Parts: sequence; C-alpha cells; structure tokens
Amino acid sequence: MDSIKKLADLFGKFPTVGQRTASRFVFYLINQPKEKIDELIGSLQELKNNIKLCRFCFNPFESNEAFCIICQNASRNKQLLCVIEKEADLISIENTKKYNGLYFILGGTLTLRKTDGSNLRLQALKERVKEGNFLEIIIALNPTPEGRSTSVLVERAVKEISQTLKITHLAQGLPVGGELEYADEETLESAFEGRK
Amino acid sequence: MDSIKKLADLFGKFPTVGQRTASRFVFYLINQPKEKIDELIGSLQELKNNIKLCRFCFNPFESNEAFCIICQNASRNKQLLCVIEKEADLISIENTKKYNGLYFILGGTLTLRKTDGSNLRLQALKERVKEGNFLEIIIALNPTPEGRSTSVLVERAVKEISQTLKITHLAQGLPVGGELEYADEETLESAFEGRK
Amino acid sequence: MDSIKKLADLFGKFPTVGQRTASRFVFYLINQPKEKIDELIGSLQELKNNIKLCRFCFNPFESNEAFCIICQNASRNKQLLCVIEKEADLISIENTKKYNGLYFILGGTLTLRKTDGSNLRLQALKERVKEGNFLEIIIALNPTPEGRSTSVLVERAVKEISQTLKITHLAQGLPVGGELEYADEETLESAFEGRK
Amino acid sequence: MDSIKKLADLFGKFPTVGQRTASRFVFYLINQPKEKIDELIGSLQELKNNIKLCRFCFNPFESNEAFCIICQNASRNKQLLCVIEKEADLISIENTKKYNGLYFILGGTLTLRKTDGSNLRLQALKERVKEGNFLEIIIALNPTPEGRSTSVLVERAVKEISQTLKITHLAQGLPVGGELEYADEETLESAFEGRK
Repeated sequence: MDSIKKLADLFGKFPTVGQRTASRFVFYLINQPKEKIDELIGSLQELKNNIKLCRFCFNPFESNEAFCIICQNASRNKQLLCVIEKEADLISIENTKKYNGLYFILGGTLTLRKTDGSNLRLQALKERVKEGNFLEIIIALNPTPEGRSTSVLVERAVKEISQTLKITHLAQGLPVGGELEYADEETLESAFEGRK
Repeated sequence: MDSIKKLADLFGKFPTVGQRTASRFVFYLINQPKEKIDELIGSLQELKNNIKLCRFCFNPFESNEAFCIICQNASRNKQLLCVIEKEADLISIENTKKYNGLYFILGGTLTLRKTDGSNLRLQALKERVKEGNFLEIIIALNPTPEGRSTSVLVERAVKEISQTLKITHLAQGLPVGGELEYADEETLESAFEGRK
Repeated sequence: MDSIKKLADLFGKFPTVGQRTASRFVFYLINQPKEKIDELIGSLQELKNNIKLCRFCFNPFESNEAFCIICQNASRNKQLLCVIEKEADLISIENTKKYNGLYFILGGTLTLRKTDGSNLRLQALKERVKEGNFLEIIIALNPTPEGRSTSVLVERAVKEISQTLKITHLAQGLPVGGELEYADEETLESAFEGRK
Repeated sequence: MDSIKKLADLFGKFPTVGQRTASRFVFYLINQPKEKIDELIGSLQELKNNIKLCRFCFNPFESNEAFCIICQNASRNKQLLCVIEKEADLISIENTKKYNGLYFILGGTLTLRKTDGSNLRLQALKERVKEGNFLEIIIALNPTPEGRSTSVLVERAVKEISQTLKITHLAQGLPVGGELEYADEETLESAFEGRK
C-alpha cells in the first residue's frame, strides 16, 4: 500500500480522528521539513522506550521507579482510593487540587460489545483493595450508561474483598452553569435529593 | 407603521425570537386562513381575561379560586417551600414527580443591569415565610452567576425573618450523561465533595 | 382546555417553534402588562384586516391598491419574472439590490406528502406568463430536493404556455466563504462547469 | 521534558488538534501494544523516505518517477491548468471525476501575517505557464478572504507571463441544499448573475 494511505489509516484509528482529518495530518507532515518528521519519530520512540505504567495505579509515567509520582508522594492520603476509567480523568481530578488520595485506573468501561469486564483491571483492583489499608473506595466513573454498569461491576468486585469497606459514588446534580428548565429529570431529581 | 413590520417587531420581543424568525411568524400567519388568526386573537383574549397569578406562589392559573391547584392541594407538604425563578422551572420540577412541597416564583434573577432586586418578589417571599409554618426553604435557582447572586439575596431575605429556619440549595454535581474528562473544575469538585 | 395550554398549542404550530418554546412564549405574555397583550391583539387584528395579497405576485402588502409596491413601480423591468417559493425569498433577493424585475410567489414547494402541485399557484403562474410580455422567467427555487422537483413542475407549466420563452435557473457553485475541501461533489462540479 | 508532554506538544501542532485531543492521542498510544507504536514509527519513516513532490505540480507521491500519476497520465488534457491551494483540494476535485486537466499546488494562501506571497510557489507557477502550452488557467482557490486576495496575486503572476492566456475562476452560487432565505447577499447576487 501507498505510504500516504497507510499512515492515514493509522491516524484514522486515533480517537476522534476521521478519514478526512487523518489525510490532513499526513499532508501536514509531508509539508513539514524532514527533521520535523524525525522529531516526531524520536518522540514516539521515547514514549515506547521510557513510559511504563505505575505498578499500583497504572498511571503512565517516566522514571526508573516502580511507582508513579502520585503513588510515591508521602503526603497523599493512602486510605482513599479513587477508581477511574482512564488517564484523562486522573488529570481532570488532579486539576481540581481537592483530592489527595490514591487512584486506580480501570482501563475502560463495559460497552455494548464488551460486557464481561475482561477489558478491565478488576483482578488488580481486588488485589489493591486486599493489600491496602483503605477507609473509602470512591467509584468515580462517568454517569453514563457505560460508566454506571461498570460501577456495578466495580462495586461487586470490591465487596468480594470486603463487605464493610465504605464505597462512595460521585454526586450527581446540576453542573455549574446548568439550568433547571433544561435539566433532564434524573439530574434534577438528584439535585433535589442531594440538597444541603 | 406597516402592520407586517409592527407585528414582526412585537414577535421580535418574544424570548429566543430574532428578527428573521419574527418575520417568518408574520408570513406564516398571513398564509393562514383568517379564522386561524381569529383563533389566535381569541386565545390571547382568554389568556388576558382568565389567567391570574396565584395569591401565594404567583403561579399563573385559570379559575375563580384565589390559589392555584398546587397551593390548594391538601396532600402537598405545607412545610416545604421551594423558591424558583420562573414558571418553566416549576414545570420541570413537577415533571420529576419527586417534590411534594409548595413553590414560590421569584419572578426573575439579578442581572448585570438589575442589581438591587427590585424586579424580584422578595417582599412577598418574606411575608410567606413569616406567615407560613415552614421547616425548610429550598432555594432552587440556577447555578449560573445570575442565579447564585440571587440566591445570596434570597437567603438574606429569609434570614431577616428567621435566623433558625433550615435553608437548602440544590446539589451540584455531574449531570446524567456527563463525563469527568469534560466537566469543569468546580462541577467536579462539587461531585467529589457531595459523594455518598 | 386551559387557556395557557390552548395558546401554547397555537404558538407550537408557528414555524421553528417547539413545545417548550411555545410555553416560554405564553409565560412571557403572562408576565407582560395587560396592555402589551392588547397591543399584540391589535396588531394581529390589523394584519388580518389590512393585509392583502398582490393580485399579480401574491406578495402581501397593505394599501387600497390592487398591486403591491414592487408591481406598481414603473421603473421595474416588466420583462423579467422571478418565480420564488415564499415571501422571505423575495426579501432576500430585494436586499441584494441587484434584481429589478417582477416576482411571482409560488406559495410552497412539492413535498413528500404533496406531490401533485395542488398546493402551488401554478394556474395563476400560467395566466401571468400568458398575459405578460416576458423575455425571461427566472426559476429561483432552492437547490434542495423539494425545490428541484418543484422547478421541473414550474418549467413544465411555463412551457405549456410558451415553448420559446427563455427559462433560467440560479447558478450553483461555491458560496462566499465556502471551501473546496468541504464542498460536496455536485457543488464543486457546478463550480467548475460555471467557471468564467 | 517528559516524553508524554513532548509528544503531546508535537501532536498539538497537527491541524485541528488542541491540547486536550493531543493528550488523548498520547494516552491512546500508551494503551496500545508496543508493536502498534512501531508500526506508526515505520509508517512515518516510509513517508519520510518514499514520498516526494511531483516536479511539475507538487502533488506528493511515491515512486521512482519524477512526475506524479496525474502529470504522467497521457490521457489528461495538457492545455488546462488548475491552480489550487493544497493537496486536499486536488483530492476533492478528482473525486468529482469531471476535471481532466493538470494541477498546480500553490502551497498555501496569503494570510494576515504572510502578505507578500513568499510562502507560495508563484515563481514555479510562472515557469510552468511559460514552458507549458496552456489554453486556460483555472484559479480554483477558496472564495474566502484569504483565497481571494491570493487569487489576485496568482492572476497577476500569470499575466506577467502572458497577457492573452484565458484565466477563469470557479463559479460562485448557491451550494447544493442551500436556501435563498439564508444565503448571504453576495452569494445570492452571484447566483443571479450566473443564472442560465
């Protein structure tokens, strides 16, 4: 196959990238000086060689250590564990600067095609819960159908290890800037139930 | 002025209606049989003659009674008062079928131009609180800048009447279908703080 | 039926207005002083009583004359006739200030449900063509499926009256601000074919 | 710098890619098997080594020849030259299957920052026009402000070589599916002027 087509196909598998955008990426690179393509290649090599996943939370990081900078941080609260779907969620939560516990990246959610949880790190999660000393497991998955059915699975997995461990879920309600008039019924209901 | 232009100007003041849409409304009417325009005129007459605002909650309704169907309903909880901005919010909350108390329609919010609250029914609200027998005042205004600054004013007004009355606000959090990755920091923070 | 519901139903039939917006219109009116509703009623009365359709082009207008201001205008070119779907199209074309002929408002297009043209003023159009002294009939319908199938019907109707009369259609091509990369094939093809 | 950050920065320079999407690309790659990253690296190497620009039209292609498959094609009309901004425009035009001449990729447009044309292949274009045997130069740039000011420059460059050569521009008009009511005045004007 032609190298333009081949590279466009690979870019076309990137998240949010369609065929047309993938072609734009290839033409963008063709019009760059060759050193720029070398720089991209070098950067991909480094990513491949240097990045590993944290042995505890599966957060990708770059160092000779076994654990990522969050898991190594002595000032983080080791009794709180927040279960999230993916790396981007960790970044969002860290950006709030309000959560000081540990994370566990589940690596995905149940989907219409993957309904048994074999694509999730449930076994590793159970090990973390067993070996850790947690007071609370925060299940911080999206309030979407996929996130909710996954939450059920995660909750069940945690309970297999401990029946008494506190398990919490993120609050549902009106988002900042939201309007009652346009809120769906379930969100509005949650906003009423959780009022304080 | 020309009747087309005049009517388009009046429609152009309707909420969400721009000049082009206002013209479409007029042309739509021109192309209807005259009886349809008479029907609209009749319906506007009825609205003007029959609709009054409930003496307690300011909900518009149609009957010879002094109070609307919600305020008259013996099975509603008379110890709960939910302060809302406008009629559409009442409809949204009623649609959830989860709130069984009374309402009070404030009639607007503070805005950049109206900052003293003279466009709001604060005096009437204070009277309702004084004369009522409430256990909780739910301030259910939008979590927008306008709604929030209005909430402060409403809370202050209620406290002028009673320092001890329970005042609550709707829960903030992730809306149904929301995603952590795209949630703003404040919403995510609220979702963490309100977890349960 | 309740006057609020009844009026909301009537507004809900206006073009582009859904149920929620229709309710907003009603609540907007309820919160206006009664004189404002009277003003709206008066304006609708005037529309009903004063507006008539031009005997030639069906453009709605207000005067004791039989013909609208465009058809009466001695400086307009009486040998050009532009067939359009609706009043708003006439306004758009007049706004360009580049067309100086007459108009004929067809009153709609064929649709999936109305396929015989009985909703169109085809008979009146044929009379205008027969009685007029036209050099060119410009069929200015939208390049949409509905507009195109209607154009075929209009063209056929004109040809029933005169086989030799010049019939033209608006140019297709790239719109101002359009981009070749995102243009559909047919638009791009027209842009090439019509190049000059 | 961290390899994640470094690669995200490089992806962030791709067209249409913002910071958040660039991070998603990196996390996507981290979660792929290492062979997938190798495949991407290999494909970038091939692109760098195998792709060259056609000596005539600057279309990127892959072969040992000096000219691309379009320029080599004996059945293409060598008397028509279509000047375009970029590769994606060539693909769009080829997809219509209605143009059978040659292309010349200008490599960009004038912008607010690049106003002298030094980023364009104007010199090469003049050489092609001088050495070729063209009957018509089609300037097929976007009808955007950038494309139009560039068209002026291209037209001037061609005229420096030949005062008599036919120069055409793509037709402007209503795009397929467009509506008169929402068309901007200039587009509607072009649609009237180009009617046929």
